[in-house]
Formats: sequence, structure tokens, C-alpha cells
Amino acid sequence: MTDASTNMRLKLPIVCFILQIILIILFGVLVQYDHEVDAKKWHSHNHSDYDNDFYYRYPSFQDVHVMIFVGFGFLMTFLQRYGFSSVGFNFLIAAFALQWATLMQGFFHGMHGGKIHIGVESMINADFCTGSVLISFGAVLGKTSPIQLLVMAAFEVTLFAVNEFILLSLLGAKDAGGSMTIHTFGAYFGLIVARVLYRPNLNKSKHRNSSVYHSDLFAMIGTIFLWMFWPSFNSAITAHGDDQHRTALNTYYSLAACTLSTYGMSALTAHDGKLDMVHIQNAALAGGVAAGTAGEMMLTPFGSMIVGFLAGIISVLGYKFLSPILEEKLKIQDTCGVHNLHGMPGILGAIVGAVTAGVASTDTYGDGMADVFPDVATGNVEASFQGIRQAISLAVTLGMALLGGLIVGFIMKLPVFGAPPDTLCFEDSIYWEVPGAEEGHEDQLTTVMSAETEKLNS
Amino acid sequence: MTDASTNMRLKLPIVCFILQIILIILFGVLVQYDHEVDAKKWHSHNHSDYDNDFYYRYPSFQDVHVMIFVGFGFLMTFLQRYGFSSVGFNFLIAAFALQWATLMQGFFHGMHGGKIHIGVESMINADFCTGSVLISFGAVLGKTSPIQLLVMAAFEVTLFAVNEFILLSLLGAKDAGGSMTIHTFGAYFGLIVARVLYRPNLNKSKHRNSSVYHSDLFAMIGTIFLWMFWPSFNSAITAHGDDQHRTALNTYYSLAACTLSTYGMSALTAHDGKLDMVHIQNAALAGGVAAGTAGEMMLTPFGSMIVGFLAGIISVLGYKFLSPILEEKLKIQDTCGVHNLHGMPGILGAIVGAVTAGVASTDTYGDGMADVFPDVATGNVEASFQGIRQAISLAVTLGMALLGGLIVGFIMKLPVFGAPPDTLCFEDSIYWEVPGAEEGHEDQLTTVMSAETEKLNS
Amino acid sequence: MTDASTNMRLKLPIVCFILQIILIILFGVLVQYDHEVDAKKWHSHNHSDYDNDFYYRYPSFQDVHVMIFVGFGFLMTFLQRYGFSSVGFNFLIAAFALQWATLMQGFFHGMHGGKIHIGVESMINADFCTGSVLISFGAVLGKTSPIQLLVMAAFEVTLFAVNEFILLSLLGAKDAGGSMTIHTFGAYFGLIVARVLYRPNLNKSKHRNSSVYHSDLFAMIGTIFLWMFWPSFNSAITAHGDDQHRTALNTYYSLAACTLSTYGMSALTAHDGKLDMVHIQNAALAGGVAAGTAGEMMLTPFGSMIVGFLAGIISVLGYKFLSPILEEKLKIQDTCGVHNLHGMPGILGAIVGAVTAGVASTDTYGDGMADVFPDVATGNVEASFQGIRQAISLAVTLGMALLGGLIVGFIMKLPVFGAPPDTLCFEDSIYWEVPGAEEGHEDQLTTVMSAETEKLNS
Repeated sequence: MTDASTNMRLKLPIVCFILQIILIILFGVLVQYDHEVDAKKWHSHNHSDYDNDFYYRYPSFQDVHVMIFVGFGFLMTFLQRYGFSSVGFNFLIAAFALQWATLMQGFFHGMHGGKIHIGVESMINADFCTGSVLISFGAVLGKTSPIQLLVMAAFEVTLFAVNEFILLSLLGAKDAGGSMTIHTFGAYFGLIVARVLYRPNLNKSKHRNSSVYHSDLFAMIGTIFLWMFWPSFNSAITAHGDDQHRTALNTYYSLAACTLSTYGMSALTAHDGKLDMVHIQNAALAGGVAAGTAGEMMLTPFGSMIVGFLAGIISVLGYKFLSPILEEKLKIQDTCGVHNLHGMPGILGAIVGAVTAGVASTDTYGDGMADVFPDVATGNVEASFQGIRQAISLAVTLGMALLGGLIVGFIMKLPVFGAPPDTLCFEDSIYWEVPGAEEGHEDQLTTVMSAETEKLNS
Repeated sequence: MTDASTNMRLKLPIVCFILQIILIILFGVLVQYDHEVDAKKWHSHNHSDYDNDFYYRYPSFQDVHVMIFVGFGFLMTFLQRYGFSSVGFNFLIAAFALQWATLMQGFFHGMHGGKIHIGVESMINADFCTGSVLISFGAVLGKTSPIQLLVMAAFEVTLFAVNEFILLSLLGAKDAGGSMTIHTFGAYFGLIVARVLYRPNLNKSKHRNSSVYHSDLFAMIGTIFLWMFWPSFNSAITAHGDDQHRTALNTYYSLAACTLSTYGMSALTAHDGKLDMVHIQNAALAGGVAAGTAGEMMLTPFGSMIVGFLAGIISVLGYKFLSPILEEKLKIQDTCGVHNLHGMPGILGAIVGAVTAGVASTDTYGDGMADVFPDVATGNVEASFQGIRQAISLAVTLGMALLGGLIVGFIMKLPVFGAPPDTLCFEDSIYWEVPGAEEGHEDQLTTVMSAETEKLNS
Repeated sequence: MTDASTNMRLKLPIVCFILQIILIILFGVLVQYDHEVDAKKWHSHNHSDYDNDFYYRYPSFQDVHVMIFVGFGFLMTFLQRYGFSSVGFNFLIAAFALQWATLMQGFFHGMHGGKIHIGVESMINADFCTGSVLISFGAVLGKTSPIQLLVMAAFEVTLFAVNEFILLSLLGAKDAGGSMTIHTFGAYFGLIVARVLYRPNLNKSKHRNSSVYHSDLFAMIGTIFLWMFWPSFNSAITAHGDDQHRTALNTYYSLAACTLSTYGMSALTAHDGKLDMVHIQNAALAGGVAAGTAGEMMLTPFGSMIVGFLAGIISVLGYKFLSPILEEKLKIQDTCGVHNLHGMPGILGAIVGAVTAGVASTDTYGDGMADVFPDVATGNVEASFQGIRQAISLAVTLGMALLGGLIVGFIMKLPVFGAPPDTLCFEDSIYWEVPGAEEGHEDQLTTVMSAETEKLNS
């Protein structure tokens, strides 16, 4: 079932070992515990234990971690014959990306005497960056080899760190939940890669590019864990106190409103008034994406619910009307519909963030302004200019994603990376040892069919 | 497969959009961040960040959230052809109920200058109220349309808030884990609704009202997550410090003891000495229900284990002997057996709470009495009278549930809501686009059967 | 399908009820809330609520709890016809073991005026001890009755507590994540039990000792939850502050590095360059095991990644080359390969811990030495001697596991405990009511086959 080029016996071990050994060497040279992790440094100051950032952020980190590995991993198991690859490649590229992201983000977030300092916040940031790669994975799901995915991850993490640096450090934008840095960037990067990797004959694998009953249930595990923990995702690196509290609450209501609009739109647009699992699995999450930038701001529950409500609507409409156009006209084969779940809702989130920032006032934020918009609090910039910086950040992100995806897509196209042939897309058995579908089942069928054959011969 | 009345193309969108728009308007008019969420209010006082209630309750909130969406959702996937609806309708009605509950509970818990103040504690309370609706869903599982369920949720949330107000505010009862407010109320409300919706010809769908091998494994995901996080559920809104600590610990041991008695009773009562998945999936959780009221009290690990042990026994006995009687004699078709998991164990929990409260003494509680029984601590009432208030609360809850269920059941019976016909109960495909059961499987069978047919014709 | 000896109708209830009643009595006599759980004691001192250990450890406890019940439970569902038993027996023996462990560990950790004091830390320790039993369960999976497993749990918990007491209290070793006490002990104990229970005719059940497509996906739920929460496992009972923070971080990077080496080694060694699910499900976790002892030390991220990298390699090599030898030469039928996941990586972790302890210096640890190596901090022992104590602890653990496993294995062999016959290993239906595999499927096949039969007869 495999030919030489897709055989991973030597390629995958070589790539995995070289990447990991490089990572180990770079960590040995460059990485240190920060002062809250290091035994000597922590104890050299007079802290109370509960001041350690671990207690403010570790529960959020674990929720984010679940989203990255269970959420994204299982969300993509909806395909009937691609469950091993969905969970398994998600696992592999995430484990690589989080290490590489630690280095890249550490480099851009500022070195300390030539060293990168790490702790719970850098772990969350590394998981965030990994999330962006996994979004892009969704666009090319089923059509790429694990080596292609590792190559994509290596470049995308780097570009993510550059873009994040431009947005947060140079432009002074705020984007705690990553509507721009994570979702918009990951989606459009992945879409352009999918465009470059366009397969005109993908319909040869079309019968596998759909779900079966239990694969849709596995995918719901991913959906529900993403949905539940999104409040933790958006609030994981916001400032302590009211900021984390407010971000979680805003996201909670945005998601709830999004779920109702998703169900409504799904029944309205799907065949015969029946609900479509693709919408439920994906569009119901758009409210979390769209609250990624403004979630930490004084968006109010009212504003959050409007944002979520709109996000659900545009996401379902995207699945119904835009995805077919993207595929036919623009030749973008977006397996998971990341444009509908992360792309458009990410842009919506960026716009909402720009508007909410633009109208921020001391009247509303009081002394809390320093946490959310430090430059506005110090009087360095007007709130309206903060809004403009947010809008510019969206444009920069789109530019970086499109250009980056273009270059990386062409790199991934190199035949040496072992992409599957058109006839074996969306198929685990090209890269995995795959057991039978059900106990005893094949045997029973074989028995019946042999009996058939015997009689025909007699 | 659907006729006009069960077609959801217009009905479901209209209901979802109207409900959500009403919610958004009411939130806009009535809801504000509380002082721990609002940027200005939080920073106008001199707090330490770790004083923010977020850090005391958010991890518990997330555990409760998992129970509501994964726990209840997957627990009900045991049916062979109702997995999409179990997880999916659970998702829909929970997303609606938590928003509506925020308003209803906010209204009854006390307005602040005409505004409802929300934060992590109100989020937990909203999830709790939602849990009650999901319990009722279990009683009518497979026999109701999503619109009927939304109607039920709208009314049940309202009545829940009234009952909770009577118990906690008027009667001064304690019920942190909701043995009465959540479990007893949700179970008996749902049972009466099921009685009103009685279907004499439900046996037409009988072949679908059972599990298959993998659907039972999906259900175990729900069971185990409920079981694991129940200590967080019962302790989520108890007082800070020893109270949360004690409640979690009591629930942990109650559940452990319950699990052993469940396995023992299942082997004793089930066919041929074999364990029955229905018992394991459900009765093993009864220990959490039964510790819902007394969990925060000085129940001791010893007392907790006795409570759990008894809860497991009565729950299995209920499944074995009482459920058939309920169906045949009382015409209550209780799909998930919520009477055995939430009804009887909830009453047990209420009684245990009344007794434990009645014997509370300063000797045992010391200055901690103020957290658990503030009225007893101030000398306003005797402990024995607190016990009586607890017992009265159980009676009120039963009355509210029975009366409320009766009225709401008749409302749900209106034909416009699109209930499934008797022949299509426990069946996803009436409301969902459903893919095939297994890749290639139908094709193979079809091939064999066509070969059959051809030969017969020749 | 069952004969008298494997029928559980009376045996299992008797065992469950007797064990639980003994536990309840012993808890009544011996167990008390500790001062952070007890209402009177906590309020008799002047604490801040956030000083309560609950807030430092409860989120970690819940993560550990998920690993024990979902992680171990679902990891073992890879077998095609043993999912009910994997999750269900895991549930039963864990619920028993955590109660029994509370008593045994309480006894050895020091009584307070004849009483065992319990709180969140004892709950974590009880879960840890339970984990050890579940590791041993993996070695004998599919070949034991629930009663045999309860018997094993009763003895193994006791011996675990003795071994832990020797290591931590008498020898002064450090082993916060249990590379020795949990993993090495549990693995070698289970392997010797499997040796004693050797079945020469196990090949009669060979066709069931493998996975099917969806059972491998269920198993990945277990794998991923174990992988994600391992940082919480290793850090759950380390000292507050930098220690918990550092342990979580070290484990995070160890696991990430382990994942890449696992994927590389799997493709290198498996058939035709394809990835093997057995490796991914298990070996990718070895990095958590191997960081169990040194995780709390100043291992550095660099050191952690080397440890994880090596752990993944030896674990895959074990599955590929050592497991067949163990079965053929040493007659150890290790169903889950616990030797590769817990045995060898546990020993690696113990060695790494001994070396890391041996080179500890005040230069590196500063005043934090008191948390990690209190005896070194006070000057009682040299760091090099701490290293020797760690090495001796490994030897003691191996001795205890081998001797204990030998004795307990022979006890488990008593025919009264109802072990399954060789022909019905790896089969749920001997102890469980099992529904059909798929809705409608058998009926269709039956129809086809009856048509067959009729024609053959005509």
C-alpha cells in the first residue's frame, strides 16, 4: 500500500531525532528556569508561596493543554479512516512545536543575559503557539505526511513568534486570547499552504473524506473539551485578578450565545431541516475565537453575547456557502473548514477588539486601565489610537500569514517529504499499522462470501 | 423519515434566535460584572490579587463545567442510535439554560440597584441549575424534540430558581451540593414530565432503546468524569478554607464506598452473576448525589462512607426492581433511570443532611459553625430546628417538582413542538444528518446481498 | 459461557461487602479530618483562607484523579473485547484501593494520638498508591477475575505502604513522582504475579488479544490524558512554590522530548516503516515515569529532555525486542507491556534521581535546598550520600516488588477466586452482560446467512 516515497522507516526517525537533538542542544545552551522556578532564585527573595505565578496560572495551563492535545486531536477524528493520524500527528507536531516555540518566543520576548527564562507563563505561550500550528494542520488534514507537518510546524512557529513580537511588542496591541496571533494567523497560513498543495484529483479519495457514526462521536469529545475550556484559554495569560476573572466570564457567555445561533443556523441551512454535525462540532466554538482579543476588555456580558451570536452565524454560513466556493474557485481544499472556525471568527474578534479598545475610557476602567491598556493608562497614547494599533495588527497578521504560508507551502511540496498519493488521502493505513474495524466482523463476512464463491464454482 | 411536524427547518431556528435575542436584551438591561470582575471596582479597593474569588473557585467551576457538558452529555450516549442527540441536545439546552439561569437566579438572589451582578460564583450556580434540567432530560431521553427540551428548560430553570430561593433564603436551609435543589428537584420534575408524556406504544421503538458495545464505552466517559469531579461539584460554592476542603474529602469517600456496593449489588441482582453496565454507569454515582447536602457538614469520613454505601445499594435495587414497576404501574417511562440515580439518592442526601444538621454542636464545629450554619452560630435557631428546616425543604422541593413537572409536561405536549412519533424514538436520524455506521461495511453487505438477489432471480 | 467457578453472583458481592464494611469500621475507629479539614481546628487558629493546603494541591489532585480513572482505565481499552473490564475493573479496584491506601499509608506515615489524619495530601497519596496497583493490573490484564484483582490490590497496597515507608522515612530518599515507589514497584510486582499466573495455553485466546480500530482510539483517550496531566502527577506533593513549579516544568519537557523519540523509534522498528499504535499509546508516556524522582530537583530543562528522549527509546525497544523474550524465555505474559512503560523507565528515573541528588550543591539550590534535600540542607548528610540512599532505595524497591509479587501471585492462584479459563481470556462476556457490537448488524448478517442455509437445504 506504500511506495518508496511514503515509506517512513528512515525518513521519520531521522527527522525526529535530528530535530530533538537540536532542541536539546539549544535548550542546554540557552534556557534557564525563571526566578519562580529556580530553587536558589525563588528562595533568595522573601516571597509567600502563594505569590508564585504557578498558583495563578497552572490550572489555566492544564486546561489549555487539554485543548491542544485532546481538543484539537479529537476534533479532527471525524474522518472515518483518519483517527490514528488525527490524534497521533496532532500529538507529534504539538510535542515538537511546544519545544521549538519555547525557544522562538523566548528569543523574541527578550533574553536575560543571553538566556531564555521559562516558567508557567512561557509554557502557556508555547501551547498557544502550538495551537496555531494545529489550526493550520486542520486545513491540510489527510493530505500530508508527518514529515511535511513537522516541516510546517518548524517554519510556522518561527513566523508566529515574529508576528507575535511585531503585534505585542512593536505595535503595542493586546491579544490575550489570540484572535489575531493564534486564530487568524493559523487559519490563513494553513489556507495558503492548502492552496499551494492543491490536489486536482483529490476526488479519488473522496469516499474517505467523510465521517461514520462513531467517528463523529469521537470528534464531539474534542469539540466539547475545546468549548468548556475556552474561558481558560482566553484568560490564561491576562493580568492577575479582575482581568483573568473577566476574560473567563466574557468567553463563557460568548460561547453560550454562539451555541444557540449555531444550532439555529444549522437547522435553517442544512438538508431537510436536520442538524449537521459539521456545524455543531465546529461553529459552536467560534464564540471562543471571536472573544480572543476583546475578552479581557470591559466588553460586558451583553457585548460578549452579541459577539458570540454573530460568530456562530457567520461560521455556519461559511461552512454552507463559502467552503464550496473556496474549493471550486480558489482551489483551497480546507479539510476541517478552518476558515469558518478560525479565519472569519478570528477577524471578527480582531475587529471587535479594535472597536472595544478604541472606546476604552478611564470612566469604565478606572485604575484597572493599567492592566488592560498600559499605554493608554500612562497617557502615552489615546484609546482611539490603541484601536488603530489593533486594526493595523490584524492587517500585519494577515500579511504575515499569507506570505509565510506561500513560502512554506512550496517548501512542503518537495517530493522527498513523502506526501500521500491522491488515491490514499484521508487514510491511516499509509502511515500506520491499522487493525480490523470490528471483532469477528471480517471473518463472518469472509465466511459468507467464501460460501458464495464455492457455490458459484460448483 | 420526517414529516411536517418533526421538521425543524423553521421551528428550531425561530426558537433559538428568539430565545437568544431575548437573552441578549435582558443581559444588556440587567446584568453587570460584580466587583471582582469589573476593572474599575476591583482596582478601587486595596486587594491582593489572590483574594479574588476567581482563584478559590475557578478550578472547581471548570470541573463542574466538565460534568455538565461531558459528564451528562456522554453518560446518555449509551443508546445505540442516539449519541448525536444525547451529546448534542445536552449541549444545546445547557448553553441556553446557563444563560437563563444567570438571570433567574440573579433575580432571586438579590438585585443590586436594579442590576444582577455576576462572577465566578454565579457561573457555578448557573451550571448547577443547568444540571437540574439535564437530569430531567435523562427521564425523557429519546422521546422529545429539541424544541420541547428548550421549552422544558425555560420553565424548569425558572421553577428551580424559585425553589432554590425558598429553600436557601426563606427557609435558611443548607444544600451546597444540591441533593435537594438539583437532584431531587430535577429527578421528580423529569419523572412527572415523563408521566405526562407517557407513550403507550413506545415498544415500537423498543429495539433502539438499548446499547451496543461501543456506545456503552462512550457512556463510561460520561460516568467516569462525573465520578471524578463530583468532589468539586459538592464543594464548588461552600465557604473558603476548611469547608471546601472537607466537602471534597467527604464526597471522595462517599463515592468510593458507593462504587464497591454498586459492583456487589450488580453481580448479586443481575442475570447469571454478571455485571450490568447500566448499574455501573449510574449507581456508582449515587454516592455523590447523596453527599450533596451533608458534604459540607462535619459528616466525618466514616459517615460519608456509610452514606455512599447505602446510596449504591438503593440505586441498584431501584434499577432492578423499581424501574419496571414505575413503567408498568405508574406509566413513567424513565429512559435513564433518573429516579434511581438522582431521585432516591437525592432524598437520602436530604435526610442525611437534616439529621447531620440536627445534631450539630459547637463542640464539633467550634468557630467554624458560622460558615456552615450561620443561624445556629448566631444563636438565632437551635441545631435541631435547623434539621427541621432541612426536612421541610425536602418536602417543599418534592411539591415544587411534582406540581411544576405536571404543568410543564402538559405544555410540552402541544403538538407544535414536533415530538418524534412512537416508531422513531431513540433515533438520531429524525433530527440529525446521520452518516453510515462503518466505513465500507454497508457496501460489502450490499454486494453480498445483491449477489444473492441476482441468483434468486436467475 | 460461564461455569460455576467464574460465576460471580455470590463471590463478588460477598467480597465487595465484606471489604467495604471492614473499611467503614476501620475508618470509624481510626480516621479523623486533619486540622485543615476540620471546622473547629481550622478556625481555632488565625489562618488566611488561601493558606489552606486545599488551594495549593486540589487542582493537582483532580488531575491525578483523572489519570487514575480515565488515564489508566481507557489506556487499557485497546483490546477489542475487553473494554468493559478495562474501564470497569480499573474503576472497582481503584475505588477499593484508595480507601485501603488511606489506612495503610496513614498508619505508616505516623498516627496522631492513635488516629490517622486525612486531607488533600493524603487523598493524593492514596491515588498514587492506587496507581501502583493499576500498573500491576496492566501486566495481568485479561487473565484475572475481579476478585483476584481485589485480592491483589489488598496485598499490594499494604506492601506499597511498607516500601514507601522504608524509602521515604527510614532511608530518607526523595521520590515525589514515584519513579521507584509507584512505577518500579508496581511494574515488577505485576510482572512477577504474571509469571506465577503463567498460562501455557493462552494462545487459545490469542485472537482476542489485539485491538480493533475504534478500541485503539478509546485507548488514545487514556494515553493523552495521562500525558497531559503527568506534570501535575509529579508535582502534586512536592513542596509549595518553586518546587511544584519546577517539577511540572521538568516533566512537561521530558514528555515532549519522549514523544519525538517514540515516534522516531516506532517508525524505525515497526513493520514496513509504519507507526505502531502500541508504541504511541505507551512509550510516549515513559518520559513522565522517568522524571518521577528527579523532577523536583534542579534537573534543568536540558536534563529533563535528555531523560525523556532516552526513556522513549528504551521503551519502544522494550516493546519490540524485550517483550517477546520475556514471554518466551521467562514466561511472563505482560499484556500491556508494563515492563516497557513503567519498569525500565522507572529504573531509569531512579538512577537519574540518584545521580542528580548526588551532585546537588548549595551553589545550585541556595536556600531551596531545605525543600528538596532537607538532610543535606541541615548538614546531616553529604549530597553524595543522598545519592547513595536513592540508589539503595531502588534496590529495596526491586526486592520488595519481586518478593511481594511472588507471594501474592501464589495467593491469587487459588481456584476459588474464579479466574477465566484459557479459552475466555481477554473477553468481557465472562463477567459482564455484553450487548451486540453494532446496531442492526447482526440482524443483517443473520438474514443473509439464513437465506444461505435455506438454499443449501433446498
